[in-house]
Amino acid sequence: MTDVAIVGASGYTARELIQLLVRHPGARVRMATSRQDEAPRLDTLHPSLTGRIDLACEPFDPDRVASAASVAFLALPHGASMAATPGLRARGVRVIDLSADYRLNDPRVYADWYDHEHTDPAGLEEAVYGLPELYREAIPPAGLIANPGCYTSTAILALAPLVARDVIERSGIIIDAKSGVSGAGRSPKLTTHYPECNESLSAYGVGRHRHTPEIEQVLGDIGRSSGGGEPVEVIFTPHLVPMDRGILATIYAEPKGPASEHDLMDLYRSYYEDSPFVRVVGRLPATKDSAFSNFCDLTVRVVRGRILVIACLDNLIKGAAGVAVQNFNLMTGHPETTALL
Amino acid sequence: MTDVAIVGASGYTARELIQLLVRHPGARVRMATSRQDEAPRLDTLHPSLTGRIDLACEPFDPDRVASAASVAFLALPHGASMAATPGLRARGVRVIDLSADYRLNDPRVYADWYDHEHTDPAGLEEAVYGLPELYREAIPPAGLIANPGCYTSTAILALAPLVARDVIERSGIIIDAKSGVSGAGRSPKLTTHYPECNESLSAYGVGRHRHTPEIEQVLGDIGRSSGGGEPVEVIFTPHLVPMDRGILATIYAEPKGPASEHDLMDLYRSYYEDSPFVRVVGRLPATKDSAFSNFCDLTVRVVRGRILVIACLDNLIKGAAGVAVQNFNLMTGHPETTALL
Amino acid sequence: MTDVAIVGASGYTARELIQLLVRHPGARVRMATSRQDEAPRLDTLHPSLTGRIDLACEPFDPDRVASAASVAFLALPHGASMAATPGLRARGVRVIDLSADYRLNDPRVYADWYDHEHTDPAGLEEAVYGLPELYREAIPPAGLIANPGCYTSTAILALAPLVARDVIERSGIIIDAKSGVSGAGRSPKLTTHYPECNESLSAYGVGRHRHTPEIEQVLGDIGRSSGGGEPVEVIFTPHLVPMDRGILATIYAEPKGPASEHDLMDLYRSYYEDSPFVRVVGRLPATKDSAFSNFCDLTVRVVRGRILVIACLDNLIKGAAGVAVQNFNLMTGHPETTALL
Amino acid sequence: MTDVAIVGASGYTARELIQLLVRHPGARVRMATSRQDEAPRLDTLHPSLTGRIDLACEPFDPDRVASAASVAFLALPHGASMAATPGLRARGVRVIDLSADYRLNDPRVYADWYDHEHTDPAGLEEAVYGLPELYREAIPPAGLIANPGCYTSTAILALAPLVARDVIERSGIIIDAKSGVSGAGRSPKLTTHYPECNESLSAYGVGRHRHTPEIEQVLGDIGRSSGGGEPVEVIFTPHLVPMDRGILATIYAEPKGPASEHDLMDLYRSYYEDSPFVRVVGRLPATKDSAFSNFCDLTVRVVRGRILVIACLDNLIKGAAGVAVQNFNLMTGHPETTALL
Repeated sequence: MTDVAIVGASGYTARELIQLLVRHPGARVRMATSRQDEAPRLDTLHPSLTGRIDLACEPFDPDRVASAASVAFLALPHGASMAATPGLRARGVRVIDLSADYRLNDPRVYADWYDHEHTDPAGLEEAVYGLPELYREAIPPAGLIANPGCYTSTAILALAPLVARDVIERSGIIIDAKSGVSGAGRSPKLTTHYPECNESLSAYGVGRHRHTPEIEQVLGDIGRSSGGGEPVEVIFTPHLVPMDRGILATIYAEPKGPASEHDLMDLYRSYYEDSPFVRVVGRLPATKDSAFSNFCDLTVRVVRGRILVIACLDNLIKGAAGVAVQNFNLMTGHPETTALL
Repeated sequence: MTDVAIVGASGYTARELIQLLVRHPGARVRMATSRQDEAPRLDTLHPSLTGRIDLACEPFDPDRVASAASVAFLALPHGASMAATPGLRARGVRVIDLSADYRLNDPRVYADWYDHEHTDPAGLEEAVYGLPELYREAIPPAGLIANPGCYTSTAILALAPLVARDVIERSGIIIDAKSGVSGAGRSPKLTTHYPECNESLSAYGVGRHRHTPEIEQVLGDIGRSSGGGEPVEVIFTPHLVPMDRGILATIYAEPKGPASEHDLMDLYRSYYEDSPFVRVVGRLPATKDSAFSNFCDLTVRVVRGRILVIACLDNLIKGAAGVAVQNFNLMTGHPETTALL
Repeated sequence: MTDVAIVGASGYTARELIQLLVRHPGARVRMATSRQDEAPRLDTLHPSLTGRIDLACEPFDPDRVASAASVAFLALPHGASMAATPGLRARGVRVIDLSADYRLNDPRVYADWYDHEHTDPAGLEEAVYGLPELYREAIPPAGLIANPGCYTSTAILALAPLVARDVIERSGIIIDAKSGVSGAGRSPKLTTHYPECNESLSAYGVGRHRHTPEIEQVLGDIGRSSGGGEPVEVIFTPHLVPMDRGILATIYAEPKGPASEHDLMDLYRSYYEDSPFVRVVGRLPATKDSAFSNFCDLTVRVVRGRILVIACLDNLIKGAAGVAVQNFNLMTGHPETTALL
Repeated sequence: MTDVAIVGASGYTARELIQLLVRHPGARVRMATSRQDEAPRLDTLHPSLTGRIDLACEPFDPDRVASAASVAFLALPHGASMAATPGLRARGVRVIDLSADYRLNDPRVYADWYDHEHTDPAGLEEAVYGLPELYREAIPPAGLIANPGCYTSTAILALAPLVARDVIERSGIIIDAKSGVSGAGRSPKLTTHYPECNESLSAYGVGRHRHTPEIEQVLGDIGRSSGGGEPVEVIFTPHLVPMDRGILATIYAEPKGPASEHDLMDLYRSYYEDSPFVRVVGRLPATKDSAFSNFCDLTVRVVRGRILVIACLDNLIKGAAGVAVQNFNLMTGHPETTALL
């Protein structure tokens, strides 16, 4: 049994994490923290947790976390995570960080996209990128996991086989991605006010969404490890869709040579043979079929010589809390699927 | 051609009003005001108005309003309306107030329910309650119209025939009302944050919603004018429904004597014979059929001796902007349906 | 480990059942049946089950079911259930029937409301009404469980304490209930076609919904067992709400004597003290907080002397598949909450 | 005043058409036809039309149509339109056909994509493609208008300036399009059953949607008329979005030379200078702002050297009924915007 702490318990990701962990036979949520003064109970913050967990938040204190838990899940905004992490690592707490703070290897790239300096370069060095389908070997011993972004996981799982096997051109890859509204977090604002975004669809952050460098970094790594040195360059267009959960990415890539759907499907099936949460499917996947699950569903098509990959997952589960638990399973020696099927 | 001003242009009600008025052959929107410093254009506040009206807001100034317009629509929060109205009336501007400030006759009742004193009792005296189906005679000469609340109009139109003809007991009337989210206004808050209220249904304000005294006052007036002196007492339960627009009220009342659906339907048809916007229908009405329209749809059923009235309307149109234009039509001598069919 | 069969696997209830059972440590889904000719795989019928279960449907054959399973969940339409059940019972298979076929004790009442004769009166005799919060003692040994209707469970859980303690008048109880669209099943029809029911709200089946006699029968039983002999009479009005899941019932009852919210809340808390799935909450419950769970959330208010109970649950889980598993747990000696938290 | 007929009155397009036409000062709906035996009233088919029009359908009979109307709107399925049109044209009735039957110039292309032969090649010869922004000169005298498809209009309006001015490569154009569910018509089926498509997003018809050849044909025409002879080749991917109305297309094209957002926006503004229903906007457009209107909103971005055009419109209005009325206005000498603002 591993005692865990939830640092930053008020958002949707924390709620999903706790919901998964109360079902986990090898984890016990011993502490939750919140910056809110009144030390709210978890079931006050999240009424759905009533009857599932009996715990009140406390302010963040690394000594208290270290005395209560050996693994901490950080569900904090970026910036706050890298302020909290060094103290936890110094006390031996293993950290699974769900923010963006440890995802980008290069602190200058971080500073460019997040508009402030990175304050924990040592943590950056230590961090392992927590996408189990790609880094299953590196995760078990890790002390600090950078849990991937939701769009990022979708795009990488969809493109990794093509890049790894050097099937496609590495520039001009188009990622047209669509997300449910929970991806925007729990702070009310006009763009996510119900009468504004319900019954509406729009693109946002065109050309400047912060998951762009993350996608390019990881795909670049995959490409390098399989021989090719060119960087990967994507055109990433996120859209806001009137639904709670789910990301679907429709990806267009140019093959280096002739491509057949049949061969590509075989490639995907073999690439993900040992990945229980990637379902390579013949049908066109719908977000609903992977909602509330840790699955990523994907398929491949060839249209007029262009390769299309269509992939989807639940942004709060496989895109955040679920993959965090998957990482936790790998780190603590549980079967990868524990509490996730 | 009547020149009109929109005072308080940033909310949903103002947007709907402007949309209706640009189609109106006898009205010209000459001015719009906003408390926002930067004097935003209307199509910046409301992108849907792009290409429909070319006007920038200005700060509220009663002299400027009076020089530009003979009728002002006030789409302000309560409190702000009764601050702005006296200056406009003093300058001869006719006011159609969409807030709650002039709806309750008794300033003490207003103070009880709205938590602050009423500062314009003279306005209260002057104001005519702007529900054309009931007060069609009083509206044309009025200088100050109190445009009714959205729940209020639904409930009153549903119950007026029964109270007027003294068919039902006046206490214990149950109004179980359900509203789309636009009724909560345009200010973002957690309860109307998309991932909170989408795919969810809940009651709110049980026993203390501010439309309660308004419903009771108007129904009481109707009852008195038809002979009975007892006050009307309702149990009003509003619910928030995951849709943009529409209110549906399911109303349960106890008949004083035996009631038949057939007779009751006749009563309703005859009561609303001259009201072009009340559709007495045989089917069970759906909010969608009256959405984006100025119609109120209703039907009557008898179940186990209890009378059920089911009524619906679009909260932003028949419940706010549409009835305001209907009042404007009556005040300016246009056919009641102008710009509303 | 108990081997189970799903008889009638193509609908939403079956999908939810299978999803719950694959997580159940003491159940194994060994067989699924479907009337479809082509013997579809479960993950073809329900893509969300891909990777969770590897099973193809077969035609219904009681011998085959009896050889594969000791418990059968029947997710069939009414009529089909009472055709299949006798053969299963004759072969010693315990049946949890999710249709309406065994819910009404009196075959004449069944015939009145379901428009055809009841063909298995012996089964009616044997059947235990599967609402664990009321019949926890009778369920463990049962051979045939009548799993309650979704509206029914909501209404009964909300009203049982008031009827059992004889707090309210037994006639004129108003149940204004609102349901998400999955309650209408999986067969496409115009009323559940997305562009018809999305962004719309309407009442349906007013005065003639088939859950009415079921509610009255069970509440009548409760009333009788606590002394009072009068029948219970409800006015039940269902509404269709544009969301997938969830039922919320707003219930209005007349107290026999003075009632206080405080005392009533105490009554509810004590009545449901040993029921892990009923959450008596102070807040006004929202369907979203019980969605995808086996919880029923409820609260009590007193408004103008009338008692309001507001209760909600997930129609597919606590209203169907979840309570079926709860019954299964009781029948097979598992803790009541297994696979349900 | 022009008398018009609606041939095929039961679908969503017909409903929208009638709603627009009852507001039109120069049109009178004199007849509506339906294949349904019972000659339903329009307000039975479409309850929202109650109180707006008082007319019952009759069976289609070209003589009757010709005696009642000089213009007929055909809201029929493809195949049915080309069966009805010759008889109407022979009797001098001008036809605005909302089906796909007269959109493709080449009957062989039609046969390939629609799986049956074209039976009215003479009609094909006569038909004018009814996209006023491109063919404003040809529409006024036309006897037969092929009203464009909804995806088609979105894509063509978004791409026409780039093709006309020869700014982009003509192959490899990616059109990632997303549509609300009303685009799928009014016949219930599983894919548009509310609990299937609500809270879900998926691609469909990848590589084989019938609007593909229509887009390529019209853009090819535009390209030819501006000098270049190469055909236009698009990769068109439609998606189903959980909302009633609206199409948003995100289009990716490769410029032939360096491209700046500023110049491109100028190009679009100048190209659509005289088109009152195309709004070239700086913001990223949201479908909601053009919903229930005849506007098409679009903007242009340059991302990593690729041109993105993002365009949206209401599929039932600007994508169907609204543009039909716009064509009607041009054909009958009304201002183009009559009844459409």
